[in-house]
Amino acid sequence: MNGWQNFIEERKEEYVSELVDFLRIPSISGLSEHADDVRQAGEWVAERLQKAGMEAVAVMPTEGHPVVYGQWLHAPGKPTVLIYGHFDVQPTDPLELWETPPFEPAIRDERIYARGASDNKGNMLIPIIAVEALLRTDGALPVNVKFLFEGQEEIGSPHIPEFLKNHRETFACDVILNADSGQWSEDQPSLLTSLRGLCGLQVDVTGADSDLHSGMYGGAVQNPIHALIQILSSMRGLDGRILIEGFYDSVRILSDSEKAQIDSLPFDETEFMNRVGVTELFGEAGFSNPERIWTRPTLELNGIWGGFQGEGLKTVLPNKAHAKITCRLVADQDPQHINRLIEAHIHKNTPAGVKVDITPIDSNANPYSMPADLPGTQAAVEVLSELYGKKPILIREGGSVPILSLLLEHLGAYATCFGFGLNDEKFHAPNEFFRLKSFELGQRAYCKILHRLGDQS
Amino acid sequence: MNGWQNFIEERKEEYVSELVDFLRIPSISGLSEHADDVRQAGEWVAERLQKAGMEAVAVMPTEGHPVVYGQWLHAPGKPTVLIYGHFDVQPTDPLELWETPPFEPAIRDERIYARGASDNKGNMLIPIIAVEALLRTDGALPVNVKFLFEGQEEIGSPHIPEFLKNHRETFACDVILNADSGQWSEDQPSLLTSLRGLCGLQVDVTGADSDLHSGMYGGAVQNPIHALIQILSSMRGLDGRILIEGFYDSVRILSDSEKAQIDSLPFDETEFMNRVGVTELFGEAGFSNPERIWTRPTLELNGIWGGFQGEGLKTVLPNKAHAKITCRLVADQDPQHINRLIEAHIHKNTPAGVKVDITPIDSNANPYSMPADLPGTQAAVEVLSELYGKKPILIREGGSVPILSLLLEHLGAYATCFGFGLNDEKFHAPNEFFRLKSFELGQRAYCKILHRLGDQS
Repeated sequence: MNGWQNFIEERKEEYVSELVDFLRIPSISGLSEHADDVRQAGEWVAERLQKAGMEAVAVMPTEGHPVVYGQWLHAPGKPTVLIYGHFDVQPTDPLELWETPPFEPAIRDERIYARGASDNKGNMLIPIIAVEALLRTDGALPVNVKFLFEGQEEIGSPHIPEFLKNHRETFACDVILNADSGQWSEDQPSLLTSLRGLCGLQVDVTGADSDLHSGMYGGAVQNPIHALIQILSSMRGLDGRILIEGFYDSVRILSDSEKAQIDSLPFDETEFMNRVGVTELFGEAGFSNPERIWTRPTLELNGIWGGFQGEGLKTVLPNKAHAKITCRLVADQDPQHINRLIEAHIHKNTPAGVKVDITPIDSNANPYSMPADLPGTQAAVEVLSELYGKKPILIREGGSVPILSLLLEHLGAYATCFGFGLNDEKFHAPNEFFRLKSFELGQRAYCKILHRLGDQS
Repeated sequence: MNGWQNFIEERKEEYVSELVDFLRIPSISGLSEHADDVRQAGEWVAERLQKAGMEAVAVMPTEGHPVVYGQWLHAPGKPTVLIYGHFDVQPTDPLELWETPPFEPAIRDERIYARGASDNKGNMLIPIIAVEALLRTDGALPVNVKFLFEGQEEIGSPHIPEFLKNHRETFACDVILNADSGQWSEDQPSLLTSLRGLCGLQVDVTGADSDLHSGMYGGAVQNPIHALIQILSSMRGLDGRILIEGFYDSVRILSDSEKAQIDSLPFDETEFMNRVGVTELFGEAGFSNPERIWTRPTLELNGIWGGFQGEGLKTVLPNKAHAKITCRLVADQDPQHINRLIEAHIHKNTPAGVKVDITPIDSNANPYSMPADLPGTQAAVEVLSELYGKKPILIREGGSVPILSLLLEHLGAYATCFGFGLNDEKFHAPNEFFRLKSFELGQRAYCKILHRLGDQS
């Protein structure tokens, strides 16, 4: 066994207990009352990088949540590898559906349950452990390494564009590895070739000055919930097709070979339905399930609220109704353009008697596709083939990692997604978990890929 | 001045301070955590009846919130007048819109602001004060009087049918005066001739087992908010007409003379819009504003909720969505029949990939019309004409008072609405208030109408 392999093996429990500490910090970037916790998680990461032997470690301010940096640049002539991850997490509601509290990590059946376990704390801790093991056993890293960990991924990295523009030199690199990603299954590795983009907005509909008695006014005053429903229902056809004018105009049509490649994947529809707990799938007519998730845009209602939501009866004609909408976008849709189309659609479909306010989200993401011949991707194919005993399949992802487009724009480098989450790990939902087996496998994988990248040059 | 008039005049401030005490009790019948407060309000009323000189005063249990009874039956040969009101109130949300807390009564510009000020605590305290004044100055009442105050009006009086069936003798009467009502304006009295009925239900839509990541699943799994919106938007046309099959089948069409009577009323559309704070009205095409509110049924969305409602962004594909629906009904619609039509419509319009649960409200109300020649109504016309210096106009009401049909069914008597609320007093909404001027006028009016009813016989 390699030295680093023994090193990791001996510290197995210590690393899990570090992950528990990290997961205890409720670093929810989307809720302002947790801003201090996000900062605290950043400081935890900085200390951990320091302990791992990284240099120039810094918690770097942005206009919002901070970025954490660390470097080791003593491999002249070798490539510089930038490793990306995020230490912020999603909100936890609905809290009552968690079996154990989201910030009190619990281990059951070799899985660690906590908000952020898989997305992304467990996955981002992996490369830190890997560089520590290499440094402590080999005395050096096979490549130059930089870490970029952010605290605003879950809110769409709103302040990262400005930040990266101002720190191009610091983060300059040859290869990017993105730890915020995953594999196909426990025994099938995969390589990501594209992600969807993101745009969205909040709609606020206002009618009267205050809630009204539904008997005294009902029938003569527009109900903002009715109005909102009319607006929203006009956005999607019964067949699942989005009816916003121009929405599909710049969507790239899959080639026959792209379709065939997707069709060839071991996608198990029954497993998919069991995983989410539905007995029937629903999506845009004319497309297979993976096509719908990977290659077609969506318009999703993330939340809706208005009027009385309590127990029992309140015969109110409410004066406000709200909805949160986000779209997943595919090449070549432009987030800002799609937002403008939605805004126009809302204004066109707003009925008499109410006014609407529209607030676009401040975190858009472009759809993203990576070339197949990246050095990072070549190395990933080799490492994954070795560890899993089979070649990774090429897949796409329905989610968005806004930072990837930004890194491309500001640093001129594509990223290779190299993470170990699995799709059933309930990211963004109650009872999120991470497999301890993946946590260990990932550590070995990162040691190997850094060596492989060092050997390539 | 009459003796009772002096008596009332001298105790003006004392009565307002009693009302303040009464309004401090947060007797919200719709929220189970306030059940004790509803009972406490009932006890407050019982003590106040006792103090006023009523006999056989009792807080009578029902299967839910209690009823308070009191009587004075020493006027042989005179009619027995049952006076109705309720001591429970509506919930207070949205709390942040209240200028002063809903259960800390505040007097501003000769108005008392608190939840229940007008609906119905201020109005129901009036006849108690009136009988006290008459008893203390005349030594007797001109008629036999019974009081029936309930604590479940705001939740539709679910346990009153059973209660009344079991206490027909106790509440037997010749005339009913309903203090849960109002006048047209500060200087125009009115008499109510009909009220709308009520039915309704809650719809719960469920998709996956838990909230899902909108990137990983969006496009392939039905979104319950989309599904709910599809169901709800199918219920109302863009022209405001309800599209539930059979909804209008038993709606009575107004005669030309009924239409003309309504048209003749001094209904001020601008004042109406200013009162609620809208610049445009919206309702069923082909009907005037008072026709829409008084003579046409509605289907109103009282509340809707599902998914993420917090600050910022959460790219979730939620697994539940909910809505509360109530209908205002007109003669000859039957509440249970209409509920069944809505249920059938929901099932017919539920899209693939979700399941729906439907819970009808347990408090329906029949539409209600009162004959013009009731003794109570004759007396009311005379008293109102005298106090306001002009005859009351005949109006209808869009709201529902479920107890009225029940009193008719179990006691065989129609009610005359004799209350002093005004339509701008924000019942069921933030900043509810009652005019102190109405509070005093009402006390004189009740003294007069009891005398008038005594003289009639």
